[in-house]
Amino acid sequence: MTKRPYNLYAGPAILPQEVMAQAREELMDIAGTGLSILESSHRGAAYDEINSSAQQNLRDLLNIPDSYSVLFLQGGASLQFGMIPMNFLRGGTADYVYTGAWSKKAIKEAKLFGTVNIAGSSEDKNFSYIPSIDSLNLTPDARYLHICTNETIGGVRWPVFPDSGDVPLIGDMSSEICSRKIDVSKFAMIYAGAQKNLGPAGVTIVIMSDEMLSRCPDDLTTLLNYRTQAEKDSNYNTPPVFSIYIVGLVLKWLKKLGGVEAIEKINNEKADLLYRMIDSTDFYRGTAALQDRSIMNITFRIPKEELEVLFIKEGTAAGFIGLKGHRSVGGIRASIYNAFPLEGVQALVEFMQNFEKENS
Amino acid sequence: MTKRPYNLYAGPAILPQEVMAQAREELMDIAGTGLSILESSHRGAAYDEINSSAQQNLRDLLNIPDSYSVLFLQGGASLQFGMIPMNFLRGGTADYVYTGAWSKKAIKEAKLFGTVNIAGSSEDKNFSYIPSIDSLNLTPDARYLHICTNETIGGVRWPVFPDSGDVPLIGDMSSEICSRKIDVSKFAMIYAGAQKNLGPAGVTIVIMSDEMLSRCPDDLTTLLNYRTQAEKDSNYNTPPVFSIYIVGLVLKWLKKLGGVEAIEKINNEKADLLYRMIDSTDFYRGTAALQDRSIMNITFRIPKEELEVLFIKEGTAAGFIGLKGHRSVGGIRASIYNAFPLEGVQALVEFMQNFEKENS
Repeated sequence: MTKRPYNLYAGPAILPQEVMAQAREELMDIAGTGLSILESSHRGAAYDEINSSAQQNLRDLLNIPDSYSVLFLQGGASLQFGMIPMNFLRGGTADYVYTGAWSKKAIKEAKLFGTVNIAGSSEDKNFSYIPSIDSLNLTPDARYLHICTNETIGGVRWPVFPDSGDVPLIGDMSSEICSRKIDVSKFAMIYAGAQKNLGPAGVTIVIMSDEMLSRCPDDLTTLLNYRTQAEKDSNYNTPPVFSIYIVGLVLKWLKKLGGVEAIEKINNEKADLLYRMIDSTDFYRGTAALQDRSIMNITFRIPKEELEVLFIKEGTAAGFIGLKGHRSVGGIRASIYNAFPLEGVQALVEFMQNFEKENS
Repeated sequence: MTKRPYNLYAGPAILPQEVMAQAREELMDIAGTGLSILESSHRGAAYDEINSSAQQNLRDLLNIPDSYSVLFLQGGASLQFGMIPMNFLRGGTADYVYTGAWSKKAIKEAKLFGTVNIAGSSEDKNFSYIPSIDSLNLTPDARYLHICTNETIGGVRWPVFPDSGDVPLIGDMSSEICSRKIDVSKFAMIYAGAQKNLGPAGVTIVIMSDEMLSRCPDDLTTLLNYRTQAEKDSNYNTPPVFSIYIVGLVLKWLKKLGGVEAIEKINNEKADLLYRMIDSTDFYRGTAALQDRSIMNITFRIPKEELEVLFIKEGTAAGFIGLKGHRSVGGIRASIYNAFPLEGVQALVEFMQNFEKENS
């Protein structure tokens, strides 16, 4: 087997090795059925247990109130960008904060279904910060306020979340779910593609309050109405069984590790290590505003672009893959999601020190 | 490991053992990258090869003309039921043939977007046959004609497909794709959830002509417009990487076996064996009209319901799982998709002979 590289891709992203080892172990026989999970009916007992324990473990990890549903959907955050206004905007006005490429995509879809008020934007500085909460221009009777809590490209995250009063707050947490403690009850809806912190591609997690669910209209395509899967326990039609199974294993791994509180501590330690390295020299320059720095996606530049090309090339050769910044901003990006190990960050810091010595 | 049972579930359904064995073998290291396919970027070389070879192999197997796109989508056939009229009905009239539970669901969604003309129905005999092509009441300028080519619950399939002239023909082939030779060029669109004949749950195959693609409107949610994934090679947003990977392995398995022509011969042999058993006695009674019998889902009854309960119970104990007919029709159903082995059918026939001896 090839030596395992350090996977710094923005997503689909690194998964815990022990999760994959267990999946491998069980691949030909799930729960003593003699069948692979890949060919197991979604109406069978083995899948019932997978579905319900994954939901329960996410509830436990994020302390999700009983008045919220946990849904496993398909189509990624990209489908959510359309489903949200389709269900909740419907000719009204919604507030969106424009903090980068992901909010931009959400805004584009919302415009098909009503009026979008850009309540705040960081476009003026290439999305390198989060607009201050005080500066937001909120619509008093907006259908909802939408934020992307962590933007992978700019490498910024909301340090604290806005209080939207009676207006439902919706958060795209695809790139940071379960990486830090949050108060779910402040949100009417949280959604996340699984393929960064929770599992493989192919399943999208939605956490939604009963109150928000009650606002879903009756005239939508069945599968695009959130109530459909809420009422059927995410088993209305055939779910992406295997992806949900892996999410379940990741959640068990996280629970065993000590939960969100424990991983947040490790995540902070990992991000601190990298940011301290970046800040200790003029060679590297972090691109995100200090107070808004993501602990998942660490973005930085090297003064000369040809050095960035060399950094990525030598980094890849040294076993650090996925370091290239998004094409819209260039530079370097290290995505260090929950499953990325501390020793990987230590090794990357060492590589960065050596690279600086050789090239400054 | 538990003894492998004979999996007769209607879907998710049995997969070839060698496919799962290969997936197991490669689970920790795909294509020598040192990474699991579960954590591989959808923008990386390993996935590029998986995506393009899966598309090409499906093209080869079904002899798909170059003027058609092959798409890997999410949401199952259930989402297609809505996406089709959303893209193509738009206030016009579409013809639907009502042959069972799956066509019923498709019809329900279509009614949200325009006028549905029921061009034919087999509701009068509990969906136990396919309306004759001559009897169809077709709308000359319909936006499309929709059929479900194989209904899993009634156990019927279209023996030949209607000629819809200039009206685009759309076929839901979820439960029989790649089980028999078809002429793709007669269809404007074919779709299929993968989880019966092609792979695990979590990916939906769509085959669509360029002409049909050109009819997609511009005002839809990006991800619900077929053109989005057609233009981006099914990689507009993160695809269900692992499910597509397994579909790719299943297609390679099918190619190695001799393609659709070879599997059709085996499928006919399997179905003939079972139907001959059913027809050889008054104890078992097939429910589908002779000329419309499915070779994928074999449905039959036993005179007394308590004997059916016993049949399913003893069958399960003997290693035949998933024999229970759909709750809407009762009885027995044996789903013998491509990957179900001939010796499994032989064993089932033997079980049926013994059961009859003991209970008639």
